[in-house]
Amino acid sequence: MSTVHPFDMVIFGSTGDLVKRKLLPALYYRFAEGVFPPEARIVAVSRRDWDRAQYLAFAEAEMKRFAKADRFNADTWAAFSERLHYVKVDAAEAKDYQALVRMLDSVPERVRVFFLSTSPQLFSDICAGLGNSNAVHAQSRVVLEKPLGHDFASAQSISDAVAEVFTEPQTFRIDHYLGKEAVQNLMALRFGNALFEPLWRRDWVSDVQITVAEQVGVEDRGDFYDNTGAIRDMVQNHLLQLLCIVAMEPPTSLEPDAVRDEKLKILHALRPLTGRDAITDTVRGQYRAGASQGQPVGGYCEEAGIDGHSQTETFVALRAQIDTWRWAGVPFFLRTGKRLAERMAEIVVTFREVPHSIFGDGQVSLAPNRLVIRLQPDEGVRLSILAKSPGPHTYLRPVDLNLDLAETYADTQMDAYERLLMDAIQGNLTLFLRRDELEAAWRWIDPILEAWAHYGDKPKSYIAGTWGPAASTALLSRYGITWHEES
Amino acid sequence: MSTVHPFDMVIFGSTGDLVKRKLLPALYYRFAEGVFPPEARIVAVSRRDWDRAQYLAFAEAEMKRFAKADRFNADTWAAFSERLHYVKVDAAEAKDYQALVRMLDSVPERVRVFFLSTSPQLFSDICAGLGNSNAVHAQSRVVLEKPLGHDFASAQSISDAVAEVFTEPQTFRIDHYLGKEAVQNLMALRFGNALFEPLWRRDWVSDVQITVAEQVGVEDRGDFYDNTGAIRDMVQNHLLQLLCIVAMEPPTSLEPDAVRDEKLKILHALRPLTGRDAITDTVRGQYRAGASQGQPVGGYCEEAGIDGHSQTETFVALRAQIDTWRWAGVPFFLRTGKRLAERMAEIVVTFREVPHSIFGDGQVSLAPNRLVIRLQPDEGVRLSILAKSPGPHTYLRPVDLNLDLAETYADTQMDAYERLLMDAIQGNLTLFLRRDELEAAWRWIDPILEAWAHYGDKPKSYIAGTWGPAASTALLSRYGITWHEES
Repeated sequence: MSTVHPFDMVIFGSTGDLVKRKLLPALYYRFAEGVFPPEARIVAVSRRDWDRAQYLAFAEAEMKRFAKADRFNADTWAAFSERLHYVKVDAAEAKDYQALVRMLDSVPERVRVFFLSTSPQLFSDICAGLGNSNAVHAQSRVVLEKPLGHDFASAQSISDAVAEVFTEPQTFRIDHYLGKEAVQNLMALRFGNALFEPLWRRDWVSDVQITVAEQVGVEDRGDFYDNTGAIRDMVQNHLLQLLCIVAMEPPTSLEPDAVRDEKLKILHALRPLTGRDAITDTVRGQYRAGASQGQPVGGYCEEAGIDGHSQTETFVALRAQIDTWRWAGVPFFLRTGKRLAERMAEIVVTFREVPHSIFGDGQVSLAPNRLVIRLQPDEGVRLSILAKSPGPHTYLRPVDLNLDLAETYADTQMDAYERLLMDAIQGNLTLFLRRDELEAAWRWIDPILEAWAHYGDKPKSYIAGTWGPAASTALLSRYGITWHEES
Repeated sequence: MSTVHPFDMVIFGSTGDLVKRKLLPALYYRFAEGVFPPEARIVAVSRRDWDRAQYLAFAEAEMKRFAKADRFNADTWAAFSERLHYVKVDAAEAKDYQALVRMLDSVPERVRVFFLSTSPQLFSDICAGLGNSNAVHAQSRVVLEKPLGHDFASAQSISDAVAEVFTEPQTFRIDHYLGKEAVQNLMALRFGNALFEPLWRRDWVSDVQITVAEQVGVEDRGDFYDNTGAIRDMVQNHLLQLLCIVAMEPPTSLEPDAVRDEKLKILHALRPLTGRDAITDTVRGQYRAGASQGQPVGGYCEEAGIDGHSQTETFVALRAQIDTWRWAGVPFFLRTGKRLAERMAEIVVTFREVPHSIFGDGQVSLAPNRLVIRLQPDEGVRLSILAKSPGPHTYLRPVDLNLDLAETYADTQMDAYERLLMDAIQGNLTLFLRRDELEAAWRWIDPILEAWAHYGDKPKSYIAGTWGPAASTALLSRYGITWHEES
């Protein structure tokens, strides 16, 4: 039943967190579903001086920790691990690549996917090493994980280094939010139905909210995070990508460049937040001690690896404006943070109120219609409308029409990485970022970072376990609206 | 908790079918809900020479037959029957009205509702009798049940006779379809939400279907039915009223004349079906022997009271066109009949297909979005949209977003008559037909009847238990569409 051609996937950084938590389980699930061709190989690479047996032992232990218990099967794992190889490569050691190339060249030419799950500082060395050792041929691809730079210039230099060896159509920049079923569904809803697209514009939409809320703190990433902050870590990539999917014009097809051209147009149409505007229209926050899931937790500055006087934001909320005919005047509110009240990611499209109520004064106010696309913790789509309260009077009440993706299709739901890895293997770039998109996003973020630095904007503190600083609420109050919060 | 003022409701024809099946249970349910003021009286009237005890015995027996078992309670019935009186009135006997008036006048002046649940031939006599005996005062109202005429002229003469005694604002013409919760909800959906109204027009709606399908045959109404037929019995009233609610412009309020003015505008905008057009755009049918609910049943011409060569239609389907900016070019298909495959009433609004599919060729065709307002057997609202099939590919599949009124609100659901009787008692005309509406509906029906007669259009036969004659399917095939049929 497999329609996938034979491939080799080479994973750099194969002892890292992402590989353990996401890539290995995703590859294993796809293998278990029978979509791998029998000749496929996965080549784990790291600088550890391990042999294959050691890596397999490591991988099995981590799989048992991170794979869903009901999806892990010893026999299937045994079959899978036959496809799993290990090569020791120190990124800077030219000779190490020779062993890798020997392994790759031991079979007839086939698709090669190099997944760089390492620090981006190593991307340049790895690409050079691959290039110099002739590991890269026409059917080769490279998959890059965030962070892809910490500003426009650094993103550019990463892209330049990669471009020395891989063409742009060979370059797969992952934003795993784009692989989520609910995001796919948002495209299906917008462009597969005549019902939404006519309303999907300033005439009928009053505002859009995009929230990616985490409950966790910085965990063991303190050092990295303190040099990054929420706007670089989350807004530049995930939130802006979601904004593009919500706001883009209908692409002519799902061909990669058709979709990416439309997203790029949105990024270009984002009104720059420069100078005082960046201060007025953004809110930085940093959590102080509070509680998370019923347990007391420390403040950001008390976390391991964090400077006690750090001014890094762990929360950011902002208003974006899109200067197009479709969206002029419609505020897009983005919000993300750590140690918030819930782990929750959603896109909320709020429609305008009816222009005139025929239902009289005794009436409760007519709550506006909302489309809520939930990405986390469960994926689902909910349309809130008003219907009549049953009974003798014509009172209206809000009701929800639900499309619960997690519940209805638990069996067949794929993790975002399952989809994206298979897309990379099959060469489908639609859900991956193009270089110009990445750079356009940074070009919009940079002036905000500059303004924060220029005006010495300090993050406002918020209690861990809440929805962020009061200023986040105030940002929306200016428009007479509130964040869509519910459990 | 009652906010209803004291009232007397006088029911003419109180041993009839409608009273037993609908009015008595409805009044009893409302009484049981505690919304009646303690002084309220229900005065049953018929020409039978009964005393009160006899009527109470009759009423109790019928209630046990027709009321929902879980809603009938002996104590509550005992309390209700204290409010229930009986007066013998022969419609043509002036002196009989005196006894009625004595009873009504025995309490201080209050709202009087005269419900005429008799043959319309008696309306004139009853109104005259009430007028001559001074039974009618400023707070009096009359409620009229269909059939209100068999053509424009006869409807006019009924209205004239009623108007001798009751003003138009005192005249409550019932169409019980307007009392249905789902119809109320259609108004709530259309005018309480910004989501539907912008799409509710020719730009986005491809067609509207209104079906009222019965499983029963003519039952014991053979004689009446054979002189009436489906278009008079169902289309002139129920189906055209539903069409008006679907098609009307937003009224400025729910005030009676605001709503009725808008409905009237639609009736006036219906393109006349005259001459050959009436033959082309309508389908008459008559059932022949077949099966209903697994049992063999005879044909229409074999039913009791039916002429063996009858040309009366037991089925009608037609295409209506509304000549307004909103609806020009959108066909409205109406269909009703007896001995059809199901007992089912629904309004189906089908939206246009997306103008361009971005989802490629391997794709199943993009089923258009549909809003289905179900009136029978269960009341509910269902929105069919396309969502993404879960899994690695971007295939779309139809899914339903449901608002199931029957299930969600079983406790509080009111029968249409409960609502309409209370509205009449409280003087709310919104859900009742105004004279000009009634007459406009007949004015549209008359030319169809004339054309059928002129061209000798015979009903096409269909097998009992099916969806009507093949010509009904063909009527829609011309537009490349099919009736929305499902169980």
